[in-house]
Amino acid sequence: MNLEKIQALQHHLQENEIDWAYLSDPGHIAYFSGYHSEPHERILALFIPAVGEPFLFTPALEVQAASESSWSFEVFGYLDNEAPYQLIADLIKKRSKSLARFAFEKSSLNLKNFELFTQYFNGDYSYDLTPVIQCLQLIKTPRECELLLEAGSWADVAFEIGFKAIQAGATESEIVAEIEYQLKRRGVSHMSFDTIVLAGENAAKPHGNPGDTQVKPHEFVLFDLGVIWKGYCSDATRTVSYKEPKDFDRKIHEIVLEAQLNAQQAIKPGITAAELDAVARNTIASYGYGEYFTHRLGHGLGTTVHEFPSLVEGNDLVIEEGMCFSIEPGIYIPGKVGVRIEDCYYVTKDGAIPFTKTPKALQIIE
Amino acid sequence: MNLEKIQALQHHLQENEIDWAYLSDPGHIAYFSGYHSEPHERILALFIPAVGEPFLFTPALEVQAASESSWSFEVFGYLDNEAPYQLIADLIKKRSKSLARFAFEKSSLNLKNFELFTQYFNGDYSYDLTPVIQCLQLIKTPRECELLLEAGSWADVAFEIGFKAIQAGATESEIVAEIEYQLKRRGVSHMSFDTIVLAGENAAKPHGNPGDTQVKPHEFVLFDLGVIWKGYCSDATRTVSYKEPKDFDRKIHEIVLEAQLNAQQAIKPGITAAELDAVARNTIASYGYGEYFTHRLGHGLGTTVHEFPSLVEGNDLVIEEGMCFSIEPGIYIPGKVGVRIEDCYYVTKDGAIPFTKTPKALQIIE
Repeated sequence: MNLEKIQALQHHLQENEIDWAYLSDPGHIAYFSGYHSEPHERILALFIPAVGEPFLFTPALEVQAASESSWSFEVFGYLDNEAPYQLIADLIKKRSKSLARFAFEKSSLNLKNFELFTQYFNGDYSYDLTPVIQCLQLIKTPRECELLLEAGSWADVAFEIGFKAIQAGATESEIVAEIEYQLKRRGVSHMSFDTIVLAGENAAKPHGNPGDTQVKPHEFVLFDLGVIWKGYCSDATRTVSYKEPKDFDRKIHEIVLEAQLNAQQAIKPGITAAELDAVARNTIASYGYGEYFTHRLGHGLGTTVHEFPSLVEGNDLVIEEGMCFSIEPGIYIPGKVGVRIEDCYYVTKDGAIPFTKTPKALQIIE
Repeated sequence: MNLEKIQALQHHLQENEIDWAYLSDPGHIAYFSGYHSEPHERILALFIPAVGEPFLFTPALEVQAASESSWSFEVFGYLDNEAPYQLIADLIKKRSKSLARFAFEKSSLNLKNFELFTQYFNGDYSYDLTPVIQCLQLIKTPRECELLLEAGSWADVAFEIGFKAIQAGATESEIVAEIEYQLKRRGVSHMSFDTIVLAGENAAKPHGNPGDTQVKPHEFVLFDLGVIWKGYCSDATRTVSYKEPKDFDRKIHEIVLEAQLNAQQAIKPGITAAELDAVARNTIASYGYGEYFTHRLGHGLGTTVHEFPSLVEGNDLVIEEGMCFSIEPGIYIPGKVGVRIEDCYYVTKDGAIPFTKTPKALQIIE
């Protein structure tokens, strides 16, 4: 449980004259409560009042697990044959005399649950909690950085396992299986997203799915992966060559690497998110490949793998000490070659510390 | 791509005088379009007009993959620095002269995207598409059943791997790693949910997470698992004993098995979902353990692991030929023992065909 952040949120609620915050994003609920769960179509909710004690609301079959987590306030459960929002309304009305304003996580709460909840109240529902929570999570504490570094070092281990698994005939799926198996054996129970291993021209699909394609000599293999470690995520990408690469592929790798390093060197408090994006984008464009860099430069990460800030054109957010985010330029030429290089960083007062240390210069696997 | 179901949905839209359906659930989008993707915070949407051609809208970096799927209508992409709903509004307005009514998947679309979308239109937004799609998916075709059977037989393979991995000192996590590794090596790239292996009293947590707990002699090990195979899911649970069980645990297993078999035998067209739930619940209650069966009896499955029908008290839906769902009674006595037994079934005109065949009588692993 993160009492400090709960209190910071309560302070924000008081300042904005909001009575209750309804948190619905499982990652955010885990961040505040210490209880992590994926409820699927059932209801998992954290209710935080401006003044007083918050409570957690879970399916009945999760009450025990929630009570054994670090959450130390009340937990209420509901059975599958009960109407959860009726129970929630009763719990809230018992705790509050006047009810005027609720704040929701608009990027997480679906329309159905919004309608089911609000039928019990007459309130003002316009306040969006999502950016508030994203801002609360924006500056990481030194302890959070330690955990992000630990998560990053597991990504380095994953690269090592993956690079070793490259051999004639190995398929993308087999390499993924090897990485996840070795990590699970060592106690890493969850990846922060489905591990991506893409061989040859498949690497030109930025979010392609690993399949039966075999790695082939003189072609690239792209690894994009991360783990969840003590609740914190890592995310990193390396593109390596299986035996000597073609000259053209080598050149593309050099350009992406230059873009990645240029952006890394530009990280410092005071620069904006858009400016960082432009550093990498201009590097790639200067070689004539701008049209093949089809996504933003990076994203924040923490307890979830995509958080604020978004390093994208148009985002004038000023980078500050303690922010954590990825720098991940790429060039994807359909049917030909794909390269992405990614590390995540912690912003310090005069630069940035990377969470992953695997060398970025083109590695050739024999 | 499932053209027949797209046309069925269009027919429904016409009958209800709705102009456009906006599909936002990635599982449902995959069901209609044949393109499966998890867009995270980016926008993935399928727009189906009452009359005319549907289109798919994806992040720019997925356009290539979507075009290579079985989807044969248009695909539009957006870059991270573009406003997706502006582009969507332009696409829709170009295709429709008068715009009055939209239907949303209210159980999937979040408030934020709803607000961003509707700012471009003046319409009626009250229609909920979620139950319509759930009904379209409710009766499975013979081909869908074949795929569900194939997915089920992979779950049987998973049990075999898991049972073999039980040995002195093995942890829950290690057994999970072994199951998923062996399946991935054989070409099963995704589990339908995080594999659950729970040892001893951990099995009393119906949705507990596998961890460092070792299997111990004379204790139960609960396996709840499934795979995604050619887009279709399996889901099954077995509880086995590592060496001879305690008498009490054996008795609890017998009760759950009796409840599971009673419900299985009761499946036939004409019975209601609630009646099936009651069959298993009454069996368990007759032994005095009703309070420890803390969830519904079962749920539908298909391209997603939780679909209609929900076998739960109060649901008077009449079971029909072609429906597919789980029967999964359990008894969870905190700190003591947990047992669940689950198979999924296809309803025939006079009974039910199970998708998984692993024996349900208590297996003792030596």
